[in-house]
Amino acid sequence: MIEVLGRVFPPERVTTAPGDLENWGRDWTRSFAVAPSAVVFPETVEEVVAVTRLANENGFALVPSGGRTGLSGGAVASHGEVVVSFDRMNRILGFDESDRVVRCQAGVVTAALHEFAAERGLCYPVEFSSTGSSQIGGNIATNAGGIKVIRYGMTRDWIAGLTVVTGAGEVLELNRGLVKNATGYDLRHLFIGAEGTLGFVVEADVRLTEAPPPTRVMVLGLDRIKDILGVLTRFQAEVTLSAFEFFSDLALRRVTRHRSLPDPLDSSAAFYALLEFDADDETAALAAFEDSLAAGWVSDGVMSQSDAQARALWALREGITESIAPEMPYKNDLAVRVSEVPGFLTDVDRAVGRHYPDLEICWFGHIGDGNLHLNILKPPALSMDAFYERCHALSPELFKLVQARRGSVSAEHGVGLLKRDFLGFSRSAAEIEVMRAVKNALDPNGVMNPGKLLP
Amino acid sequence: MIEVLGRVFPPERVTTAPGDLENWGRDWTRSFAVAPSAVVFPETVEEVVAVTRLANENGFALVPSGGRTGLSGGAVASHGEVVVSFDRMNRILGFDESDRVVRCQAGVVTAALHEFAAERGLCYPVEFSSTGSSQIGGNIATNAGGIKVIRYGMTRDWIAGLTVVTGAGEVLELNRGLVKNATGYDLRHLFIGAEGTLGFVVEADVRLTEAPPPTRVMVLGLDRIKDILGVLTRFQAEVTLSAFEFFSDLALRRVTRHRSLPDPLDSSAAFYALLEFDADDETAALAAFEDSLAAGWVSDGVMSQSDAQARALWALREGITESIAPEMPYKNDLAVRVSEVPGFLTDVDRAVGRHYPDLEICWFGHIGDGNLHLNILKPPALSMDAFYERCHALSPELFKLVQARRGSVSAEHGVGLLKRDFLGFSRSAAEIEVMRAVKNALDPNGVMNPGKLLP
Repeated sequence: MIEVLGRVFPPERVTTAPGDLENWGRDWTRSFAVAPSAVVFPETVEEVVAVTRLANENGFALVPSGGRTGLSGGAVASHGEVVVSFDRMNRILGFDESDRVVRCQAGVVTAALHEFAAERGLCYPVEFSSTGSSQIGGNIATNAGGIKVIRYGMTRDWIAGLTVVTGAGEVLELNRGLVKNATGYDLRHLFIGAEGTLGFVVEADVRLTEAPPPTRVMVLGLDRIKDILGVLTRFQAEVTLSAFEFFSDLALRRVTRHRSLPDPLDSSAAFYALLEFDADDETAALAAFEDSLAAGWVSDGVMSQSDAQARALWALREGITESIAPEMPYKNDLAVRVSEVPGFLTDVDRAVGRHYPDLEICWFGHIGDGNLHLNILKPPALSMDAFYERCHALSPELFKLVQARRGSVSAEHGVGLLKRDFLGFSRSAAEIEVMRAVKNALDPNGVMNPGKLLP
Repeated sequence: MIEVLGRVFPPERVTTAPGDLENWGRDWTRSFAVAPSAVVFPETVEEVVAVTRLANENGFALVPSGGRTGLSGGAVASHGEVVVSFDRMNRILGFDESDRVVRCQAGVVTAALHEFAAERGLCYPVEFSSTGSSQIGGNIATNAGGIKVIRYGMTRDWIAGLTVVTGAGEVLELNRGLVKNATGYDLRHLFIGAEGTLGFVVEADVRLTEAPPPTRVMVLGLDRIKDILGVLTRFQAEVTLSAFEFFSDLALRRVTRHRSLPDPLDSSAAFYALLEFDADDETAALAAFEDSLAAGWVSDGVMSQSDAQARALWALREGITESIAPEMPYKNDLAVRVSEVPGFLTDVDRAVGRHYPDLEICWFGHIGDGNLHLNILKPPALSMDAFYERCHALSPELFKLVQARRGSVSAEHGVGLLKRDFLGFSRSAAEIEVMRAVKNALDPNGVMNPGKLLP
């Protein structure tokens, strides 16, 4: 293998050292075997083409590797694949201020792009917790979302052009940064969210936008989850929202304890909504709050009076993942339509309560997008294996509830290895058949990230 | 044929009357033969499936027919096809205010959707001149753009879900209105802009947004086209633009004469920019104007002081097409990156001037999107045939200039029959090969709008 790869890469850019295989051969998931045969570090598009052709000719498979922050095993190499790391393709290649488009290599770290934009008085508005490590190529491959989707959309919405190397080793330059281009099938969107199974993203044209205006943050307490839709609709009619998040009281308890933070409100509630909106809309937001109070939807609320206070309120939401980490949560990343959220939450609480009354659920998520992170917490007395087994056993029942509401078994984490066998709960047999045909057209020998995504 | 179609459709929803064939068998283009064998008017998804299966079994082809306002022949039936009109699938099926998503049948007229949204204090922001006739299914099939793209994007950006009938007669329910859905290839985007060649759009989930804020309109005079990028960048840094249009002095002359309108400015200029922006940004816009004046980029300007005046300024831009119609313009709908606009305009002016010094060019378009409508006017002395022949002869040279700047030979009108043989100027051979493979996967017998889009 080393000998074959040596035809393309100099020795310092190929490794088979066990520590390197372990490091570059996996993402943030920890439940899959990690067993690549080598890791290579291309520096050019031509080298990615060359290794793809080698894979086709010599019958080995490739796994793309970016910031390795994935949560579904999309970048895990379990079967002797060659890992293609984009760590050395991390340059910003160009920027034009009238186009507001940045040309990036796939390995540019998301935070570096944020910084590049900010230095120009502009903004790349896709934000999520792992932006310090995640790479733009991986964001594109998973169509990363995050906390500002209600205002700015997903990664997909910011990609004006994409250069990919297909499984057949062809370079496609898709859309080339144009705003309008009605010349047939938009293959760019096929590669966005394809998790590297059709080809690898090597370069991208990323749009920037104006820096966001100053904002305020509000945290509201709610006793009944069904009332959250009234609150959302009322605020949406009056203010420009940049976030509409939610978390359960159990989630709040964990964060305030973990970080020794004060409670945001005088009295606790069953659920909390965190809203971020333009500072200009402050008066309108206060009116919407008064209305929500009068309607009995919310029991109490607080609005940030300074940037420091806004950050403190955000910490209540952003600190959840870290605060529950010691309880080894079994995570699910689900989506339904916004209008289905209250009914869906109730269904799931009931199903878990019925089967596993001893398990605690920590809910949080992006209500404005219908995206719910369901975290089942491990009781201390249960072993990891026994706990995971019980959660796994619950998954089909949970996914049936998702399916009944026409939702998604993976809102923003992707399918990878983790959800592969559950894809049928969100995509029909006919859709999966079309997906396979598309895969065969672009990657006829199945060398691009095989075993991922498609069941 | 009638007998076969009669298995699915009652007599009043099948026609072979010559007037009907002529009416439903074509779009706004006039240079292609119109020769369908029948027109059918389905009322349900099941009927569209049934006629697709008949087509597969009996070896005839289908052409989709919406508002028939297309400009590239995408909905022209020239070879005995059966036209599938969506005129009777024109109902709005549902709306939820917390989702802000409208479920539409494909035949809903765009203006009816605008009205539906306005009645709820919301907005469907895709706007163009033919919205009174065009249908949402056709908008999706061509990924329609228009005059507010700089702020609101294309039709693609507003489609949360899509139900299609593939060429194989399968119904696919794509994305089902979700905001976040990371479950594999987003086939929805494959059908948007596919001009009915993979399958027919039968229903769609369309997102609505807040009603736009009050706006102001400014018209600026420029002597040099290259300065327009400075003006755009300066205004974009200060104000929220909802339009940044442009037209040449020749275009302005035609409109003011045709509609007996006064000149917007005291002295004429070579080019004009029309800007629309939030009324709140008025002061910032005036500062940007002063700066542009001081930089020598603009020679003069006017800002609307009332809605009536704003409409009068817009009339200068929107009246162009109508005003040049008597001169039988040969239209081209081209796009380059915004940063390439000045150089591209100069290239084209020079090429036309060199080969055809007697032809006049009327330029207008959406500078903010890099979308230029190039209209070559017919000299009165030239016959239609001779004029079209000369323009056709120019096309390859023109498209080479587009290709050199990595632009698009069809920005928003689509490929259809008109641009089919020129697709290679905007898409590589490898891309076209992938497109063919995708077409074969979804429409194996080639019954969906054959002969369109793919060369």
